[in-house]
Amino acid sequence: MEKKVSLVSHSIADIAAQLGGQAVGQTDLIVTRPREPAAAGPGDLALAMDPKFAAGLAQSRAEAAVLWADADWQSFGLKAAILVGRSRYAMSGITTLFDLPPGLAPGIHSMAVIDPSAEIGDGAAIGPFVAIGANVRIGAGVRILSHVSIAEDVIIGEHALIHAGVRIGARVRIGDRFIAQPGCVIGSDGFSFVTPEPNAVEEMKRTGRITGETAAPEWTRINSLGAVRIGDDVEIGANAAIDRGTVSDTKIGNGTKLDNLVHIGHNVQIGETTLICGQVGIAGSAVIGDRVVLAGQVGVADHVTVGSDVIAGAQAGIANNVKPETMVMGYPAQPREQFMRGLKSIRRVPMLSERLAAVEKRVPNEDVSG
Amino acid sequence: MEKKVSLVSHSIADIAAQLGGQAVGQTDLIVTRPREPAAAGPGDLALAMDPKFAAGLAQSRAEAAVLWADADWQSFGLKAAILVGRSRYAMSGITTLFDLPPGLAPGIHSMAVIDPSAEIGDGAAIGPFVAIGANVRIGAGVRILSHVSIAEDVIIGEHALIHAGVRIGARVRIGDRFIAQPGCVIGSDGFSFVTPEPNAVEEMKRTGRITGETAAPEWTRINSLGAVRIGDDVEIGANAAIDRGTVSDTKIGNGTKLDNLVHIGHNVQIGETTLICGQVGIAGSAVIGDRVVLAGQVGVADHVTVGSDVIAGAQAGIANNVKPETMVMGYPAQPREQFMRGLKSIRRVPMLSERLAAVEKRVPNEDVSG
Amino acid sequence: MEKKVSLVSHSIADIAAQLGGQAVGQTDLIVTRPREPAAAGPGDLALAMDPKFAAGLAQSRAEAAVLWADADWQSFGLKAAILVGRSRYAMSGITTLFDLPPGLAPGIHSMAVIDPSAEIGDGAAIGPFVAIGANVRIGAGVRILSHVSIAEDVIIGEHALIHAGVRIGARVRIGDRFIAQPGCVIGSDGFSFVTPEPNAVEEMKRTGRITGETAAPEWTRINSLGAVRIGDDVEIGANAAIDRGTVSDTKIGNGTKLDNLVHIGHNVQIGETTLICGQVGIAGSAVIGDRVVLAGQVGVADHVTVGSDVIAGAQAGIANNVKPETMVMGYPAQPREQFMRGLKSIRRVPMLSERLAAVEKRVPNEDVSG
Repeated sequence: MEKKVSLVSHSIADIAAQLGGQAVGQTDLIVTRPREPAAAGPGDLALAMDPKFAAGLAQSRAEAAVLWADADWQSFGLKAAILVGRSRYAMSGITTLFDLPPGLAPGIHSMAVIDPSAEIGDGAAIGPFVAIGANVRIGAGVRILSHVSIAEDVIIGEHALIHAGVRIGARVRIGDRFIAQPGCVIGSDGFSFVTPEPNAVEEMKRTGRITGETAAPEWTRINSLGAVRIGDDVEIGANAAIDRGTVSDTKIGNGTKLDNLVHIGHNVQIGETTLICGQVGIAGSAVIGDRVVLAGQVGVADHVTVGSDVIAGAQAGIANNVKPETMVMGYPAQPREQFMRGLKSIRRVPMLSERLAAVEKRVPNEDVSG
Repeated sequence: MEKKVSLVSHSIADIAAQLGGQAVGQTDLIVTRPREPAAAGPGDLALAMDPKFAAGLAQSRAEAAVLWADADWQSFGLKAAILVGRSRYAMSGITTLFDLPPGLAPGIHSMAVIDPSAEIGDGAAIGPFVAIGANVRIGAGVRILSHVSIAEDVIIGEHALIHAGVRIGARVRIGDRFIAQPGCVIGSDGFSFVTPEPNAVEEMKRTGRITGETAAPEWTRINSLGAVRIGDDVEIGANAAIDRGTVSDTKIGNGTKLDNLVHIGHNVQIGETTLICGQVGIAGSAVIGDRVVLAGQVGVADHVTVGSDVIAGAQAGIANNVKPETMVMGYPAQPREQFMRGLKSIRRVPMLSERLAAVEKRVPNEDVSG
Repeated sequence: MEKKVSLVSHSIADIAAQLGGQAVGQTDLIVTRPREPAAAGPGDLALAMDPKFAAGLAQSRAEAAVLWADADWQSFGLKAAILVGRSRYAMSGITTLFDLPPGLAPGIHSMAVIDPSAEIGDGAAIGPFVAIGANVRIGAGVRILSHVSIAEDVIIGEHALIHAGVRIGARVRIGDRFIAQPGCVIGSDGFSFVTPEPNAVEEMKRTGRITGETAAPEWTRINSLGAVRIGDDVEIGANAAIDRGTVSDTKIGNGTKLDNLVHIGHNVQIGETTLICGQVGIAGSAVIGDRVVLAGQVGVADHVTVGSDVIAGAQAGIANNVKPETMVMGYPAQPREQFMRGLKSIRRVPMLSERLAAVEKRVPNEDVSG
């Protein structure tokens, strides 16, 4: 049930120019699809930027490939090749050249509901079942796929790509070149409740105990008057959720990327060019620096500060402030060396126990210390 | 790119009356926006309920503020102030006064699809692209934003606020004053599969081993005949998911609040005024008591009972029943003191190892024990 | 506020035939609703397949029940009963018989937007606000509930049940009998970014340190040219998210089931009849075998291989390859026995410490080793 899909075409020479690589062989050869080396055939561009792919490429029917810088391209039976340096970076260029734009007709679909006071920039493409509220301002070149809702007073910069089913709440402000994956929510209300009298959580923080003597909580809502402010070049993953601020805005800095199913609490401040991987949760009022990388399923407690250039290993539970330029792991999160030492310590216990038993057998029973 | 948004206005006297606080100074002064102290200016209400904000407030252009009970309000150059006791509770009152209602026109949007058999209460506001099924009954004062789907036979009480893109499955019943954040799913099918013959998971539970000798599983679905029953004053977070029960309903008690991306499995029973923080997962048939607080990313295993007044620290993995009035932490979750003792134990191992080595050097090599 | 809902009716004889059980008593008795034993009355089918339900059943007003194989059915005052072997498997048959189909009119709703080039199979039912793109092909008997979006060039097999608000991205291919719970996203873009120069994460992997001397990252996107390919009999949970592949497709094998809020990264390959429980996250390019069970909140690191017949305990953090037929637990995930040994080791430290102190008191202070 292989299906024909529309494809993009480029010559080897053009691709090499885009990648800053070296085109060799029949450089006017046209290719239409990047493929893994072993699966590539005529018309494909085999992606073999690492010598480990050499064997697969040699056995394939590929006629064109992207190879590592000093590869002996002719040994693979190719008609043409592109030689590149940093291979992962080349992937960025290649996948940009061959990316297929979403199937979205230019203009505004007849089944979209757009408030007359909204301003939509030039060249917009807006799909069916999109709802845009009052006073919204959206920049030029925006693409909004089906089922998106954008509430009143939202501002979005130029060239946004907003996938199906995204929810953007009132008064959210977003910079240029924004990408929102399907189903993400930007501007949900913060999870912030308070009791008239001190409750059990406050008692636990103060006394380290739960007595059951605090009043039954009647959780009263603290509404979110703030919104969310997002910089330029930000991407938000599928079904992620970002809460509004209580008084000021929740903030996400320029160039920061969030993966799928990430949870960002109210008032959180995230710096620039930070990566937040899948299913990370950041509780209310936490502050995350610049160039931070939080691996998958990391949790950050409320009001904690994570310094710039921090890397947190997967599932780390960050309960306290983390200094800049630190890698942390585990729960509660600790510097990597300390975490590793802890693992080693646990493994040493059985051996220590045996050695202690041996020593006990070898010492006299009376106390000689005093 | 600051944008004018509609604002709410209140006098200092009126705000103080609502908060049960004391108005001082020019109490007929009108303010339109609560702000952080350092950023506040004329027309704003600086929120400085803690002495730690004193410096920022003194240097701001604020003319009105909410202050702690015995603050020397005149020392900050204010024209008026409100003195309050419990500051977080005051936040609830303030954010209620200044909350902006969602931009939703009264009445039913022409692009909503509502089954003729559905009953919608007085004063309803229903947005575009809302779908409501047969026999649905919704109380007075309901607000349903765009793209919500409510399946057949659902009952929802009065004054619900249902944000964009919420999914409510068939036969779900919900009390009064319900709040649903964008994208949450109430009434997905339970994750419940069974094999004709015993499978590897059952073998592991019984024997502690996987032999690979069990039959290849053909996972057969157990459908969810039950629904979800939700009490009064419940709030569900963005993109959370709550599964239906198998035979009876999954239940969530009065006053309980769920944060974003929470997962509630089939048949789960949650008590009253319980807080379930972001990304918590509760597996099928677990029972959670009243006044429980589960911090972010906590997991609760299937069929486990968590007693009332329990607090679980972030990322705790609750594999077994937890007694009431206990704080648990870690994986597998254990009482807080025991968890802390474990951390300390791990850190002591290197020192014990050194001391043991020293002792080994000091004892004779022969066995003297017997 | 109990509400009448439509019900299904079956005779005891018919149900027994479907379950492969034995019908006893008045086998033409009609029942309309399976219920828990204690709550069952006339017209209900009490589900009491385990002797632990005997007391509840005896005190109920039930007239018909499903019982364990050698139950003394007449002792419960029943008019009829069905005796079955494997009780959980019987639940599958019972819940299939009594399942209520979603309230969806046959045909295509007038408020659906379907590209003229799309092919929809016979007997389709498509709800309001559904958007289907160009060249989509969907098999016979499909049911698509409201607010679903299916992008261009998607292929879906026969008898799919796609719940409200599901997002299916371009070029995704799905087999027969597919079930998608509300809000799940299939075919979001991968989270894949690269810097022109080596960045801090690469430095950490290479040197074990962060020096702050790497260039500030400018995260450049690697687009996802691949799609997602899903086998037959697959189910995806509510608000789960599955990313496209970079060059080839992300793959999910026949008979595999994913629970709510699961995250599947780009290029991931999952085998057949594998169960992925709630909130599991699988990072990019990981490979998961056949008949694997990943319990709730498990994380799998990128490029890791998890062998067939593996079981991972809840919250396990799988950082390295796992051999087939292994149960792993904890972070970093380790074989179950080793994890248990580690827990025991931590608990033994205080006692070892006491014994060591006692020994220290009993040995002379001079070094006797040399």
